[in-house]
Amino acid sequence: MSGLSTQAEPRRVIAALLERGDKDKLATYLDRLPPAEVAHALLRLPEDDRGRLLELLDPEDAADVLHDLPYEEAIARLEDLDAEDAAAIVSEFAGTERAQYLAELEDEDAEPILAALPADEAAAARAQMRYEENSAGYLMDAAFLAYPEGKTVGEILADMRANAERYAEFDVQYAYVLSAGGALRGVLRLRDLVLRPRATPAAEIMLPNPVSVRADAPLDTLTQLFDHHSYIGVPVVDADGHAVGVLRRRAVAEAAEERAEGAFMKLSGIVGGEELRSMPMLQRSLRRLAWLGPNIVLNMIAASVIAAFQGTLEAVIALAVFLPIVSDMSGCSGNQAVAVSIRELTLGVLKPTEFLRVFFKEGGLGILNGTILGALLGAVAWLWKGNLWLGAVVGGALALNTVLSVLLGGLVPLVLRRFKVDPALASGPILTTCTDMCGFFLVLGLASAVLSRISL
Amino acid sequence: MSGLSTQAEPRRVIAALLERGDKDKLATYLDRLPPAEVAHALLRLPEDDRGRLLELLDPEDAADVLHDLPYEEAIARLEDLDAEDAAAIVSEFAGTERAQYLAELEDEDAEPILAALPADEAAAARAQMRYEENSAGYLMDAAFLAYPEGKTVGEILADMRANAERYAEFDVQYAYVLSAGGALRGVLRLRDLVLRPRATPAAEIMLPNPVSVRADAPLDTLTQLFDHHSYIGVPVVDADGHAVGVLRRRAVAEAAEERAEGAFMKLSGIVGGEELRSMPMLQRSLRRLAWLGPNIVLNMIAASVIAAFQGTLEAVIALAVFLPIVSDMSGCSGNQAVAVSIRELTLGVLKPTEFLRVFFKEGGLGILNGTILGALLGAVAWLWKGNLWLGAVVGGALALNTVLSVLLGGLVPLVLRRFKVDPALASGPILTTCTDMCGFFLVLGLASAVLSRISL
Repeated sequence: MSGLSTQAEPRRVIAALLERGDKDKLATYLDRLPPAEVAHALLRLPEDDRGRLLELLDPEDAADVLHDLPYEEAIARLEDLDAEDAAAIVSEFAGTERAQYLAELEDEDAEPILAALPADEAAAARAQMRYEENSAGYLMDAAFLAYPEGKTVGEILADMRANAERYAEFDVQYAYVLSAGGALRGVLRLRDLVLRPRATPAAEIMLPNPVSVRADAPLDTLTQLFDHHSYIGVPVVDADGHAVGVLRRRAVAEAAEERAEGAFMKLSGIVGGEELRSMPMLQRSLRRLAWLGPNIVLNMIAASVIAAFQGTLEAVIALAVFLPIVSDMSGCSGNQAVAVSIRELTLGVLKPTEFLRVFFKEGGLGILNGTILGALLGAVAWLWKGNLWLGAVVGGALALNTVLSVLLGGLVPLVLRRFKVDPALASGPILTTCTDMCGFFLVLGLASAVLSRISL
Repeated sequence: MSGLSTQAEPRRVIAALLERGDKDKLATYLDRLPPAEVAHALLRLPEDDRGRLLELLDPEDAADVLHDLPYEEAIARLEDLDAEDAAAIVSEFAGTERAQYLAELEDEDAEPILAALPADEAAAARAQMRYEENSAGYLMDAAFLAYPEGKTVGEILADMRANAERYAEFDVQYAYVLSAGGALRGVLRLRDLVLRPRATPAAEIMLPNPVSVRADAPLDTLTQLFDHHSYIGVPVVDADGHAVGVLRRRAVAEAAEERAEGAFMKLSGIVGGEELRSMPMLQRSLRRLAWLGPNIVLNMIAASVIAAFQGTLEAVIALAVFLPIVSDMSGCSGNQAVAVSIRELTLGVLKPTEFLRVFFKEGGLGILNGTILGALLGAVAWLWKGNLWLGAVVGGALALNTVLSVLLGGLVPLVLRRFKVDPALASGPILTTCTDMCGFFLVLGLASAVLSRISL
């Protein structure tokens, strides 16, 4: 590799090989580089170069590169490629993955790619794309092995040997046993096929009445199912009880991981659930403003409460010091309650209707924590200004507002879940606006009520 | 089941069966209930009753119940049981899971349970507990099948048949091929054993030089490995290249999911990464105060900046309205940058040393977003009070503080990662304190500088 030290920064090596158009060396180099290094280096190339690189590589190698990239970036690259190039790459993916990538694209980007795919792959992808995101049907492998009840171990093994090549992509560990009508009767573990005499009929070694899952079952149901059972996979059935695919534990675990990562990002105000600093600046800015914009409006509404109490503030300017503290601390307390509610809803140990449970569990805790925090802040205010009434106003306001914040924080996710709004995204702004307004109102309202005592 | 309608609330049915001490009916009832319902019902029983229930059930049934409970709750229950009862239940777990549960317990709780376990189970658990949490060694299955290079397909299948019962718990899909010295030479897929002629020697059908992973590799490395490769599992080797276990894709995905859930909770101020409302009130309160306590102190320090500018505030009371807005909006902007840095670090596309990249990527965006938000807030201030200078002060302060917040938010997780502090837990408070102080200082400092212009 003349002029290219292997010690060189991967980004420079890749840029140089891309410049030369040496697709074979490029493919070899990328394949040997640890996956995180591939992503790290490529995300530092100009966006156009990333596109050119995928066009230059053979589809199989390009598919490998897409696997190394963060999901959001892989989707962006597919969107930018010609439909034919994208189809050639997507065709290298496994069936389920192909459908999931295509489902992530806008319709106008997905349709030309589907049209350029081999007919059978396109039909299979379309079928799977019809399922709701993260449902059993969306996450399952639609390719599976199935045999009629009467087949013997020997016959099944012979069929497997004869079709070894074709079945290789099925990632075979199970086969289903079906009735003549196609209804799921049992599951054969590959292990049992190996370990049992060859004359045994399938019906005898199958696990009958297997646990199965409906294709429309949502992710929460699926995570709870796999928590309960130690199965590696379960059959997926349609409304008529016909087997339509196999859902693997790892597909569920990976989807749950992605959802948790997305929730983390949304909670922090990354609206789409993902941002990479390699994205165009304007796109990053607009996405962040989509969160900041509504927030600044809500903030102004909340702060307008302060404006209404201008006279009180003028009389006791020290109150201005405590307003941000009360607002911030109430936000913290409320966010803790939000997180616990979201978590309990995900685990299934809290139902979206259980308002009373949350009310009492959070109310009790709010009184406890509110008293402690209020006493602390009140004492500081008292000592600072030597005015007990000021301490009582500030401490009382924080105590009351803490109770209110944890109640609201605990309950808002339940309400949002019932209205099918994502609690990770919307709970924070709703909570903060309400607790800010109430906090300001409590501090300034209480102060106004005892103004003669504190404006000394 | 006299007097117990099957329509009754599961919690009441369970309480009644527990009261009667009818362990068989209880076990059957719990086994038939969907797992989320089991957790939902049990978490609504008094804590003592949950303990009594586990003592009453046979260890196998109790182990099933623990699987249905949230992890944190299952750990708490094991802590409360007698060591003998806990050992009998833990003994029903798979080996890896047993080690992981025991590793989660305090040493003083784990030791008596280990002492009460069968010697071989205890030794295996101790060996696995020595690995760092979420490393390959911690997550792997230590039980695996291995054969010498010379064995044939026929011999291997015969061994598998002869030992079917014993191997059943291995969850067999792969076998390793080892050298005489125990070094990993290749991997045999069970599939290939089934599909190849029986006289073929293992060395010929094994996948040679398999991708393997060191036992001390951390979770980030493991998630990136499985993103890159489509393997179901990879062999784990020690420093000498000897096979010590098999790491499955789903174990990695499940660990990554748990970590993401924990990060979500920590970001919201649930310090331990988990809270359930079924925990004792005092424990919940103390855990939340562990986060709120330091926060209120930091808040007071930040607000002390306001106290220093009392004169300016007295002259322009309207400034008190804008202080919480600037503080809150800067916090929002900074948290977005924090989330993106944590995410990029996890994905491996950002290294903890890349301060300059973050500086420029966030700086540019901060100038853009700061200008837009500052202009908006400044315009509102101007229009409200009809004072252009006031608008300039407030808008300029928000613009500058936004730049500062995104820089700080982007960089703090990198610094924390280098000092091995969890960025999800510590970034928020550090960020908010700094941006609050700077925000207050900018608004009031700028106002003081042009006081004669705005105090009309």
